[in-house]
Amino acid sequence: MKKLINSAGSVVTDALRGMAAAYPGLRVDEENRVVSRASGPRAGKVGLVSGGGSGHEPLHAGFVGYGMLDAACPGEIFTSPVPGQVVTAATGADGGAGVLFVVKNYTGDVLNFELAADLCAEEGVEVRSVLVDDDVAVRDSLHTAGRRGTGATLFVEKIAGAAAEGGAPLPEVLRVAEEVNARSRSFGIALSACTTPASGRPTFELGETEIELGIGIHGEAGRTRSTMRGARELVAVAMDAVHDDMPVSGDTLVLVNGMGATPLIELYVVFGEVAEYLRGRGARVTRSLVGGYVTSLDMRGFSVTVCLLNEELLRLWDAPVETPALRWGR
Amino acid sequence: MKKLINSAGSVVTDALRGMAAAYPGLRVDEENRVVSRASGPRAGKVGLVSGGGSGHEPLHAGFVGYGMLDAACPGEIFTSPVPGQVVTAATGADGGAGVLFVVKNYTGDVLNFELAADLCAEEGVEVRSVLVDDDVAVRDSLHTAGRRGTGATLFVEKIAGAAAEGGAPLPEVLRVAEEVNARSRSFGIALSACTTPASGRPTFELGETEIELGIGIHGEAGRTRSTMRGARELVAVAMDAVHDDMPVSGDTLVLVNGMGATPLIELYVVFGEVAEYLRGRGARVTRSLVGGYVTSLDMRGFSVTVCLLNEELLRLWDAPVETPALRWGR
Repeated sequence: MKKLINSAGSVVTDALRGMAAAYPGLRVDEENRVVSRASGPRAGKVGLVSGGGSGHEPLHAGFVGYGMLDAACPGEIFTSPVPGQVVTAATGADGGAGVLFVVKNYTGDVLNFELAADLCAEEGVEVRSVLVDDDVAVRDSLHTAGRRGTGATLFVEKIAGAAAEGGAPLPEVLRVAEEVNARSRSFGIALSACTTPASGRPTFELGETEIELGIGIHGEAGRTRSTMRGARELVAVAMDAVHDDMPVSGDTLVLVNGMGATPLIELYVVFGEVAEYLRGRGARVTRSLVGGYVTSLDMRGFSVTVCLLNEELLRLWDAPVETPALRWGR
Repeated sequence: MKKLINSAGSVVTDALRGMAAAYPGLRVDEENRVVSRASGPRAGKVGLVSGGGSGHEPLHAGFVGYGMLDAACPGEIFTSPVPGQVVTAATGADGGAGVLFVVKNYTGDVLNFELAADLCAEEGVEVRSVLVDDDVAVRDSLHTAGRRGTGATLFVEKIAGAAAEGGAPLPEVLRVAEEVNARSRSFGIALSACTTPASGRPTFELGETEIELGIGIHGEAGRTRSTMRGARELVAVAMDAVHDDMPVSGDTLVLVNGMGATPLIELYVVFGEVAEYLRGRGARVTRSLVGGYVTSLDMRGFSVTVCLLNEELLRLWDAPVETPALRWGR
């Protein structure tokens, strides 16, 4: 295993130190492992807090900033943040209008964010949670009851973040977040597994021509193993899975996401095929992102996430955002 | 070789098709392989044109847009664009104030851009060229006489692009571009080679604990082979090479660049060490970028580029930019 790290035990801390040096707009509390806006909470604004295991960068800390998250709490690699950490993030993000937790549907995250919400209530901070479960690949898995939360997390954070920034009250921010999740589906394909720093070995083994269909973002295996083929066919597999579950139509927001070690030129190729697929079903790419946004360490492969837009969601997507990983229009 | 492509021969075309679908702000001429601003040239503004082999995405086409390039011409993988292609880009980008070519110092690029400049002169388009040669690793190489052009290309394109957008005349845009190059140095380290779609094999082989120091961006081997070590020590190797050549001090603009298959969490770790190194020499990280910007297909590793800022360059760096890969402040 060759990784650009100092030691397996210090990866998360060292990465946070790097974020602190690179992004003056962030306040990085290395001790409590909370990344928040340097400007602090805004009075009367709903706070948006997310978190989860590390290894998915830029998710979540890279989405902290104006128009998106107020705070993120990174756990160890692929390990949920602890409740105390979430509470620190939430109390720091509360501007008096309550806090929305954006939680990916993984058992550990769900439990710890629930505990944190209870603790927050005791401290007088009103908390609501949205559970993101967009991955159509598996119904239940080693890490989940129900669907996993993957690429749509970014959509939820951006769109609910814009609602919160615009002054929407907590029930309204929650409604928007749930709507984004309800209108989003994802499917991922891996050409290689990822290797965690602690284990030093790939989480599963793929042969020279094998691929894994329907992977999650924690190195867990997917729906089924298959053989390598061209980008167009792989996109058809992914998009058929999405389309079977939620027929695509009208205006769509599309994320073609690299899993961490996927060259951008390959993601461009994939995006071209996804756009073609959507056109073939009478749907339009109205907004899009191409790049590594919800990654899985050094996994090779891609996921595609489609959100069926309506006027409100489009307006909120277009609203200004200023974070390390997403930035436009302010 | 597992890659998300349709065929080795169609990669560049398919990727351009994807860019066209993803970025409505770009005009993608697939036939002539020219990517330009959808808005066309602006009368009286100096046009900025760059190009080079594909495989370095988002460089260069991802930097086409307001405040940066007017057009880019991607060649085949790691292969210079042909002169006719460059001429098409240049004549399309000319707003009557002449065109600056941003050329990375590789023999093929230098030749073809020179030929293109001659052809443009015949067509009445005034052209100047800036040669980027920031890589301190090797003096001459298989592909270069003198130093190679790598990460600083992005700095030159952004800063000269801002000068052009602000209405500076051609000699002034050239002066700024040359100043950025003169004040910038880079060094890269690979944990693995890259594999071109056409060959299907890594461009060089590294053992389990081997790394390559001083790599370029075309899969060529570097200055020397060495053994893997921690991020802090690797950064010291890279930064010592930069610092020996151009002592770091004062305000710096720093790019910690992933080579194409490097997870972002590792780049954060590297960035933390680079910032620490600079602090130790009395220099400051005044502006920075962390991510895959000047890549080498699926190579693993990083490069670091340092530019010694002055007031003018900082102002131009901060100026608004709106391209697929860099976007802020408009």
